Amino acid sequence: MRTMPHLTTFDPARWRAYAQGALRDDLVAALVVSVLLIPQSLGYALLAGLPPEAGLYASLLPLLAYAALGSSPVIGVGPVALLSLMISQAVAHAPPGVPPHAVALVLAVEVGVLLALAAWWRLHALAALLSVPVLQGFETGGAVAIALSQLPALLGSGARGSSLPQLLASWRETPLPWWPLTALFGVVAIVALWVLRKRAADWLSRMMPRGRAVLLARLSPLVVLATAIAVEAITRSGERGVVLVGALPALEWRLHAMSFDLALWRELLPSAAPIALVAFVSSLVVAESMARKEGTRIDPRRELAGLAAANLAAAATAGMPVAGSFTRSVMALDAGSRTRMAGVFTAVFMGLAVLLIGRPLALLPIAVLAATILVASVAVFDLQPFREAWRYDRAECVLMTLVAVLTVVMGVTWALGVGVAASIGLLLQRTARPHVALIGRVPGTEHYRNAERYEVELTPGVMALRIDESLLFTNARQLSDVVAQQLVRYPDTRRVVLQMSPVNHIDLSGLAALRALHDMLAGRGIRLDLSEVKGPVLDGLKAGQWRQWFGGELFLSHHHAMEADGPVR
Amino acid sequence: MRTMPHLTTFDPARWRAYAQGALRDDLVAALVVSVLLIPQSLGYALLAGLPPEAGLYASLLPLLAYAALGSSPVIGVGPVALLSLMISQAVAHAPPGVPPHAVALVLAVEVGVLLALAAWWRLHALAALLSVPVLQGFETGGAVAIALSQLPALLGSGARGSSLPQLLASWRETPLPWWPLTALFGVVAIVALWVLRKRAADWLSRMMPRGRAVLLARLSPLVVLATAIAVEAITRSGERGVVLVGALPALEWRLHAMSFDLALWRELLPSAAPIALVAFVSSLVVAESMARKEGTRIDPRRELAGLAAANLAAAATAGMPVAGSFTRSVMALDAGSRTRMAGVFTAVFMGLAVLLIGRPLALLPIAVLAATILVASVAVFDLQPFREAWRYDRAECVLMTLVAVLTVVMGVTWALGVGVAASIGLLLQRTARPHVALIGRVPGTEHYRNAERYEVELTPGVMALRIDESLLFTNARQLSDVVAQQLVRYPDTRRVVLQMSPVNHIDLSGLAALRALHDMLAGRGIRLDLSEVKGPVLDGLKAGQWRQWFGGELFLSHHHAMEADGPVR
Repeated sequence: MRTMPHLTTFDPARWRAYAQGALRDDLVAALVVSVLLIPQSLGYALLAGLPPEAGLYASLLPLLAYAALGSSPVIGVGPVALLSLMISQAVAHAPPGVPPHAVALVLAVEVGVLLALAAWWRLHALAALLSVPVLQGFETGGAVAIALSQLPALLGSGARGSSLPQLLASWRETPLPWWPLTALFGVVAIVALWVLRKRAADWLSRMMPRGRAVLLARLSPLVVLATAIAVEAITRSGERGVVLVGALPALEWRLHAMSFDLALWRELLPSAAPIALVAFVSSLVVAESMARKEGTRIDPRRELAGLAAANLAAAATAGMPVAGSFTRSVMALDAGSRTRMAGVFTAVFMGLAVLLIGRPLALLPIAVLAATILVASVAVFDLQPFREAWRYDRAECVLMTLVAVLTVVMGVTWALGVGVAASIGLLLQRTARPHVALIGRVPGTEHYRNAERYEVELTPGVMALRIDESLLFTNARQLSDVVAQQLVRYPDTRRVVLQMSPVNHIDLSGLAALRALHDMLAGRGIRLDLSEVKGPVLDGLKAGQWRQWFGGELFLSHHHAMEADGPVR
Repeated sequence: MRTMPHLTTFDPARWRAYAQGALRDDLVAALVVSVLLIPQSLGYALLAGLPPEAGLYASLLPLLAYAALGSSPVIGVGPVALLSLMISQAVAHAPPGVPPHAVALVLAVEVGVLLALAAWWRLHALAALLSVPVLQGFETGGAVAIALSQLPALLGSGARGSSLPQLLASWRETPLPWWPLTALFGVVAIVALWVLRKRAADWLSRMMPRGRAVLLARLSPLVVLATAIAVEAITRSGERGVVLVGALPALEWRLHAMSFDLALWRELLPSAAPIALVAFVSSLVVAESMARKEGTRIDPRRELAGLAAANLAAAATAGMPVAGSFTRSVMALDAGSRTRMAGVFTAVFMGLAVLLIGRPLALLPIAVLAATILVASVAVFDLQPFREAWRYDRAECVLMTLVAVLTVVMGVTWALGVGVAASIGLLLQRTARPHVALIGRVPGTEHYRNAERYEVELTPGVMALRIDESLLFTNARQLSDVVAQQLVRYPDTRRVVLQMSPVNHIDLSGLAALRALHDMLAGRGIRLDLSEVKGPVLDGLKAGQWRQWFGGELFLSHHHAMEADGPVR
């Protein structure tokens, strides 16, 4: 277990232990993460359609807020790519005349409040709404949408857009389609970044141990950025139309810029809700993945509280929603982060960076930043999960693909809405069409298996059925029909035994269906018995006073039920 | 099996057999049903906010159309109470200036087309959306709403409304709150109807066999109606302000009154969809109940086709949606109906009635019709299902009550929408919180049961768990956590065996969760084995190439899995 001083209560002994133990590791990890965080935060702010400093400032206070309330020792909170994509789409659909930073500010407050409410009302289970196919499709589609959205900045076009139709429309309307000098910066940066990503670790591992080489290689984009700044300082291409990051305004309290237009707040809520869900789920995925590596457990509710605090802090100082970043968290873990204090130190380093390297950063061409985002997105793009899903379950693969395509074409809110609805639809459809097995005895054992898959013995006159689903309203109407179909094949049946081990619940509709089945069979002179009814299900049946109509017997094991069939009672 | 001539192919031999066999029974049943259908169809048209003849005409062609395409031999298609309530609510919310009959006409066409599309696309499974609590709540709330909506007509008030707030608002606005002479007709009719409903069967059974007495007693409302007509003919109270049914216009082709205002069609679609669903489900419930009594099966798709044809026929001639009526179907069955020809004869008798008794019917005070509807609704009102639901499952009882209250207060569309969403929500919540059982061996057997419910033997170092749910996206995130919680209780565990018999499906999210569990356990040096994996689930795992990461073993029976635990391999 990690030793970590409480931030709220001051205990000198624990702080001393910390200073002698984990402090150094946390400082190193914070330094490494900060170096990666500087270009990421600038780039993600631009991706969101906001001024670059918004990203830097979103990497200061939110880190402290998460460290105070969150649970994970390594999770890196701040601007993240997919959230920035969602912000840019919300900005693009905001009413005309509202500046992007005002939209993002309202979003950040709403996301913070929604997350805080979710923590209060214990709604962490809602994370389940984003199933694996939805998340995977969203990530893949998001990578494509992010890469596409960077093309204009990369080529020096004034076009903007975060979904394909927007981008095409904007591209057609923009008078200057591209600017050769900007494009030169962009394309050279892409090539350099790609080569470094593929080769840097190998090159470095000739000089140092492999682990450290891999870690350092992740910082290689910094070389490209520094080179670009140097080239810009020499050539002064900014004076010939290449757009630069520009001087960063000082950190200031942002809340004074808050809009109190209720209509705007209401209009942005449908964007804020999916942003809050994605912020929570992506942070949770990161935290879970880290916890698995560490053998620890995470508390989803504290995760919600930490994220809520981080987003409210982001609203106060930066004005853009934040979440846990996968790349930076992996980096923090690999760099040896030991406690949440690493996040505090990262915030301190970022603050120093704003003060110390603001002037060189101002010279960075935006096309080069765009190139780092594009390369990072393309590197994430992976079709392997689609191939695996296709092999496992075609319907889920179709869902995954649909979500990916909708993310690019219609925007994230649409894609997630359709994805969640379709996930629920698939689940309902599965429960609606249960697999039905006629079961028989595996010779010489007390085990009963599907007669179509195994060589089994059937008992004449007794039909043993296993219906592989709970009895729910989705399938209740079919229960009698399924049994009646089997009776057509075995017309001399005088007893039906339902093996109930797959039945995890019986709802009111299922109870009515069981009664209808019992009565239908009784009308034909056939007896209905049940075997292996689970405890909670049986409790329910008793509460429903089923003995008033049920005339059959209950057996603890299916074998007993079949053995009991001597002369018909 | 029933002998019934095909309506489409003329086969003299079969018709001759029919004429000598079932013809007489069908004729008698048709006569009895027609006698009941006359007041019902008038009343339900008024309930829907339409002129009374709409109900009569909705009982002619639709019966023929259903007989041609439907499947049930006894189901009585025509105006039904709950559908009329829904029509009246759609009429009340229609744009101002559109007359009620135009609204109902568009609804009938839309309902017919939706049902036809549902038949074509094989969407009969959508009937499952109306779970038992939703249907029961809707029926109870509907009975209350119908009874309330009849109060103004009964008391001679001009107020109108089919939901409580509408009714109260309208009542307050109406200048003349009630009319004593009308109220006299209404109240006397209610008392007479109620006494007849409670006593008529007993009185009649002194004169005839009980079965026939019960059947005849159901026709007793006719005595009240005939008396009211006679009183009206003598007192001519219609001239003193008592509203009468009035002269019936001749049957005519209605489609010429059709609105082609696309905006109206679009606006009515959200009302037509739940009407179509309710028409289908209530007819299906009737057909299922009849089929169970008869030991036959029904074909939901043919049911859809028959209803679609009936509604399109209703649109052409009457202009109101129709469905299968429970009371009239039970009556047809009890009266001995043998084939779908009974429906044809009912249509013929209804046609004769329109021609022959139109003049006396014109004298019927509407307050008396309202009294028949009110008494029929109150008689249906039953709290027993709520009590039973409370004992069985409180959440479903709350849902049932919510749907009933919403039906009265907000209208049927709202109530059904909330009900369906809440049913799905309850199902998701159930799958999200699986029951977890630590299982042990029932001494001296090969059976394994929940250690908290049975006296069982546990194997030291081996944790056998049964998670009573499929592994789905709703619960995937909790799988590792649930096992980790158990590991806290049994820290010396070196092997975990999951008994998989309750697992009916594993979706992609569940597969990822199983892999995460496997890796989490492997990280702690614990081995994961599975027992009793079902065939379809195993097929899926194999397709997902799980052997690439799964290091444990599969056992056909849980007992084998536990026996296998000699020295740890």
